[in-house]
Amino acid sequence: MDLSLPESATIVEMLPRDGFQRYPEFIPTDEKVELIDALSTTGVDEIEFTSFTHPKAVPSLRDAAEVAERIERRDDVCYRALVPNTVGMERAIDADVDKVNALVVISDGYREKNQGMSLEENLEQVEAIVDLADGTDIEVEAGLGTSFFCPYDGEIDAEQTLSVVDRVLEAGVDEVTLATTMGMADPRQVTERLSAVYDRHPDADVGLHLHDTNGMSLANTLAAMQCGVSRFDTSVCGLGGGTILPGGLGDVGNTPTEDLVNMLHDMGVRTNVDEERLLEVATNVADRLDLGTPSRALMGGTREQVLETAETEPSRKK
Amino acid sequence: MDLSLPESATIVEMLPRDGFQRYPEFIPTDEKVELIDALSTTGVDEIEFTSFTHPKAVPSLRDAAEVAERIERRDDVCYRALVPNTVGMERAIDADVDKVNALVVISDGYREKNQGMSLEENLEQVEAIVDLADGTDIEVEAGLGTSFFCPYDGEIDAEQTLSVVDRVLEAGVDEVTLATTMGMADPRQVTERLSAVYDRHPDADVGLHLHDTNGMSLANTLAAMQCGVSRFDTSVCGLGGGTILPGGLGDVGNTPTEDLVNMLHDMGVRTNVDEERLLEVATNVADRLDLGTPSRALMGGTREQVLETAETEPSRKK
Repeated sequence: MDLSLPESATIVEMLPRDGFQRYPEFIPTDEKVELIDALSTTGVDEIEFTSFTHPKAVPSLRDAAEVAERIERRDDVCYRALVPNTVGMERAIDADVDKVNALVVISDGYREKNQGMSLEENLEQVEAIVDLADGTDIEVEAGLGTSFFCPYDGEIDAEQTLSVVDRVLEAGVDEVTLATTMGMADPRQVTERLSAVYDRHPDADVGLHLHDTNGMSLANTLAAMQCGVSRFDTSVCGLGGGTILPGGLGDVGNTPTEDLVNMLHDMGVRTNVDEERLLEVATNVADRLDLGTPSRALMGGTREQVLETAETEPSRKK
Repeated sequence: MDLSLPESATIVEMLPRDGFQRYPEFIPTDEKVELIDALSTTGVDEIEFTSFTHPKAVPSLRDAAEVAERIERRDDVCYRALVPNTVGMERAIDADVDKVNALVVISDGYREKNQGMSLEENLEQVEAIVDLADGTDIEVEAGLGTSFFCPYDGEIDAEQTLSVVDRVLEAGVDEVTLATTMGMADPRQVTERLSAVYDRHPDADVGLHLHDTNGMSLANTLAAMQCGVSRFDTSVCGLGGGTILPGGLGDVGNTPTEDLVNMLHDMGVRTNVDEERLLEVATNVADRLDLGTPSRALMGGTREQVLETAETEPSRKK
């Protein structure tokens, strides 16, 4: 038995979009900019730094354009923004983003609540977004919400997801990312679905967007890597989730970036992330947003920290 | 890409030993008996219900013999006890257990603090335990502590672990279980080490004892199943850990049984566990021992619960 793992992985940081949108208070623009700039220094490859959604739909990200203007752009980071439609795409072009995440929600229950569109309308928006990107330097990634499970519709049929993958690739997106929006996917499902995607589209650039309600997201990551996926969306401190998901803050979270990176590095899968710096930034995020100790790595769950604790803290016995 | 998963898995419940020993207060015998009897009704295959250790070494389990006498034995449950040496084995025989977990700790740093023995002395105890079991109905499982990582010695060399596996199998134990004592194993390590065990001992009955400090334990379970392992030690509410491990309660835990079972059932791997009943018992344990919501399944992270929440709680938006 041999695990077939990639040599390296690409880390996409979601805190400024998935996290800030789910946070119960509006995070002031100054603080957003400061935190995004800090995330830019950790070595993550890409940051989804905001969402060009209607300010009334997601008021917590209503300062998207200002954030785009004020953050410090580093050459080694790809700055991506979510766009739900062509209006958002036009704002994203004006904001000079490197990449957009063109959102498609697969399940009707979630999409209707979230975007109020039919699947066909949603896919037409993606086609139009690709057209708008044409002739610019902007890359288009299609993020497929509820690729596995919807809190309103239950398990999503594989064929439903696969047909949307077909459509967005036909539309000409550069990358496609399956999202475990509700954090309820399991490794068998991930394996079956991703294998089927590669069977149909062997050369596609496929990623996995990770939420972790059921605690299986690192197992899902392992399953995905064995299928050939090496690009993962996660959020520092695990903060994040769709604004219309049921449950409160803390019930629905993304996979903490620091836990994913800890696993990849322990396994010898390289990333560009400086783990020590990432933990510093995560500690700062947890403090400022009052998140407690929201990840295993922040609880001391890296090998280095365990060895340090064992040296400095007396054991409970003796 | 196809996950090779077992059709079914064996669940060994560790709360009464790993959990009660780590709990900061002595749990009264009445309460222990009541909780063990409740665990017996969940469908778990096996319960490590106590440890026949010296009462001064682990005072929280000093009532082992009384617990053994007072619990209600069910035919469909295997009642196992930890024995660190032949003195413990004699007490276990008197207590009429079905199986013993003959503990061997692989790393010197942990073993010296925990048992004050050399590896050779520890292995001699296992040989003597097997001799004592001979002619009784008691099965012997060897539980190999720090099979992957030791908080005092760091990463454990594969050859060290493999040579101990060789020795206990030669000694004639019925089963061998590799333990992630500090909860710091990663899936690549698990795969490499378990594959090597099966390469040397294709017919051995091999299990994995799961702690989860680094959050990778479900990924480790997935890796282990792909190697052929289908027996897992976990603890309801994730309560547990060696008494001499660094860190406090909550920093070091076992994998919650309810999270493991949730993953196995989602993936279509059968167990004998009644998930609904398990969640009831876990809720009761969390309440009585004041553990908060210590697992994903207790936070609402099963598919059934998510669908219920989505129906009954208004979404945060609109």
